[in-house]
Amino acid sequence: MPKPMLGANYTPRQGWFHSWGSFEPSPVQEDLAQIAQLGLDHVRIFPLWPVLQPSRTLISPTAVDDVLRVVDLAGEEGLDISVDLLQGHLSSFDFLPAWISTWHRRNLFTDPDVVAAQHELARVLGTELARRPHVTGMTLGNEIGQFAVSYHPDRHPTTSEQATEWTRALLETVDHHLPDRRHHHSFDDTLWFKDDHPFTPADAVTLGASTTVHSWVFTGAGQTFGEGHPALALYGRYLVEVADLWRRELGAPEDRRIWLQEIGAPTPWVDAEHAPQFADTSIRAAVAHPAVEAVTWWCSHDVSRGLGDFPEVEYSLGLFDEHGRTKPIGEAIGSLIAELRAEHVDVGGPPEQPLAPLPVPALARDGSDRSVLGPRGEVFATWAAEALEGRPRPLATADVGALAAGSTDHSSSPSAPINERRAARC
Amino acid sequence: MPKPMLGANYTPRQGWFHSWGSFEPSPVQEDLAQIAQLGLDHVRIFPLWPVLQPSRTLISPTAVDDVLRVVDLAGEEGLDISVDLLQGHLSSFDFLPAWISTWHRRNLFTDPDVVAAQHELARVLGTELARRPHVTGMTLGNEIGQFAVSYHPDRHPTTSEQATEWTRALLETVDHHLPDRRHHHSFDDTLWFKDDHPFTPADAVTLGASTTVHSWVFTGAGQTFGEGHPALALYGRYLVEVADLWRRELGAPEDRRIWLQEIGAPTPWVDAEHAPQFADTSIRAAVAHPAVEAVTWWCSHDVSRGLGDFPEVEYSLGLFDEHGRTKPIGEAIGSLIAELRAEHVDVGGPPEQPLAPLPVPALARDGSDRSVLGPRGEVFATWAAEALEGRPRPLATADVGALAAGSTDHSSSPSAPINERRAARC
Repeated sequence: MPKPMLGANYTPRQGWFHSWGSFEPSPVQEDLAQIAQLGLDHVRIFPLWPVLQPSRTLISPTAVDDVLRVVDLAGEEGLDISVDLLQGHLSSFDFLPAWISTWHRRNLFTDPDVVAAQHELARVLGTELARRPHVTGMTLGNEIGQFAVSYHPDRHPTTSEQATEWTRALLETVDHHLPDRRHHHSFDDTLWFKDDHPFTPADAVTLGASTTVHSWVFTGAGQTFGEGHPALALYGRYLVEVADLWRRELGAPEDRRIWLQEIGAPTPWVDAEHAPQFADTSIRAAVAHPAVEAVTWWCSHDVSRGLGDFPEVEYSLGLFDEHGRTKPIGEAIGSLIAELRAEHVDVGGPPEQPLAPLPVPALARDGSDRSVLGPRGEVFATWAAEALEGRPRPLATADVGALAAGSTDHSSSPSAPINERRAARC
Repeated sequence: MPKPMLGANYTPRQGWFHSWGSFEPSPVQEDLAQIAQLGLDHVRIFPLWPVLQPSRTLISPTAVDDVLRVVDLAGEEGLDISVDLLQGHLSSFDFLPAWISTWHRRNLFTDPDVVAAQHELARVLGTELARRPHVTGMTLGNEIGQFAVSYHPDRHPTTSEQATEWTRALLETVDHHLPDRRHHHSFDDTLWFKDDHPFTPADAVTLGASTTVHSWVFTGAGQTFGEGHPALALYGRYLVEVADLWRRELGAPEDRRIWLQEIGAPTPWVDAEHAPQFADTSIRAAVAHPAVEAVTWWCSHDVSRGLGDFPEVEYSLGLFDEHGRTKPIGEAIGSLIAELRAEHVDVGGPPEQPLAPLPVPALARDGSDRSVLGPRGEVFATWAAEALEGRPRPLATADVGALAAGSTDHSSSPSAPINERRAARC
């Protein structure tokens, strides 16, 4: 098994993602050089959809060139790179083109003209990226399923069948134009825990080259355990276990890998002083799971305090501060990477012994009762208590309970409400 | 009285207003040279708000430089120029920044932080424009009041008092940073005719350096009279009369001027064959009114058929086609300008003799019954019938009916419904 890749979600230090609208290569080159010097091996980047495709029928050649320039700069620094297609949603801001807004409001998952335009963008960008071997693949759009969820203030209603078809078809187009790479779709943890989310665990574990996980303790774990609790550094690993559970539940291949595509240390749940330890524990716990192929930290660079309106939590997630100085969390991750990369070093001690699964209630295959596994529920509380004692058990549903000898029966645990969770973020 | 200025609303031939996102000076220089060569003396330009101010607290220096470059290119071609601040709304598309959308939804007329950001943009842009004497002034935003109207699909609710205050304060800031120019606010004709429009005729005739008029026959005149009817070429003049009526009604200064800031020849109401005559008649009728200081045609260049989703009417409004060729309507306007510019030539024949006003129903000063003057109503029908016979009479309310000896009494005319009018546009 190759060592997992360790990288960062790239947040440009100058101008954040707004810099796509007035691209300058020099500061980007500096940022990427810093990321590479820390020992990270890849970045994930986020072009803005309205900049790339300002009209449904116009893909900006300048904007495509800017993306390619960033890709090439990453390559010059020895970094692999993955590219998110449709942004879409970033750090509480939605960037939707005028041609699907207000007078031109059309559903971004189901309108045939809108979907055709998305495929065209995938074709144009994919074709160019195909010439660059250090591009690992594309992700359809950062947590783009958020636009379909019931709490979204400008929701694009989508059935589960439509969500699956949208994802499947766009992945197919990306794969056609950028073949022999690993393509993904992404989502926040509401996909795993919100009973009525039109995107389902089945989409997560069967579509795309591997299963992506975005781990944020502000979605319930922080509120449940409290600021600074050591269980928070295990939430990423828990989500990996949830993903692996659903893989087994839904009969996806045993060799299905997991990409912990976003994980970060958000205040106030993790304060600056403890962020290095949080990162170290989070990454070690994740990569100790045999399915995890990569961890990508959110994010590379702090958002400048000069940029208004971000939720407070978003300003301080970087490995580098807004002046480009490496933060303690950056140094911690750099040290960990050096350790992980060294030969003959087993990460986090000897390989984990196989543990008996923790039984969880039976799950409907359509995800309609998936909230039982949520971060405010008893399953996570029980799992975390054991994980804190060095036993991060796999999860298994009660109907495979034969594996669960000696475990406490939690099948009657009430599912936890998660519908307030967005408030913490936006 | 100086001859009225005649210009064009500048629609970039390459990439329409999306070109702000990937600015190149060369095609803009070509466009502006064409406009100048036709004899037009000014252009009005429309930066995109999200490009200029992608964050509430970030005004893009690159985007400001791009605007200034266009301003300077216009100057090099001998053109005066006016700059619209907040777009906002253009040809059915709304361009709103992410920081007032979805999760960050805030009212663009009343939220203190949003308004403060607008004033900051006015300061930054105004300060730069102040160094350029050929800048005639700024307009707050193209028909930006549309966002406050009841039919807007993503309405920003605003009271009349708030609308007035927003307009007054922003004009004051613009005037402070760009002094000794003429600043305006703009609106479509719903301001004149929609009873519940929060922006009112009082705002129109008392705020800004002069009263702006946008004349589009697809808002009711076309539907009432039918395609190709000669009355349509008098609708702009009618709106001038409406503006002048409201000036008198509300006691605004006698020397208050009127800028016919937008007028165009939209299909199917005006077909390509008759567009030159429509333009000639429209402009002559407008400039024959002593209050009219300028006419600005919409628009300079056709929208490329390669750009999707525009209402059909928007593609063919240019004086130049999408390949840069002068259209017959452009030639007609060029000829008319040559005539108007010639010494000792009285436009459209001898000066109009003062005509007795056409009496109209008394009007509430707050505009709450303003729809009586709308393009589907009897007032316009009566006015147009006489104007077609060479008698474009001023309008006067019944309570100044002493002026109206010999006129038919239309004070009992029912007001016409106008609430279907948007359908024609979007």
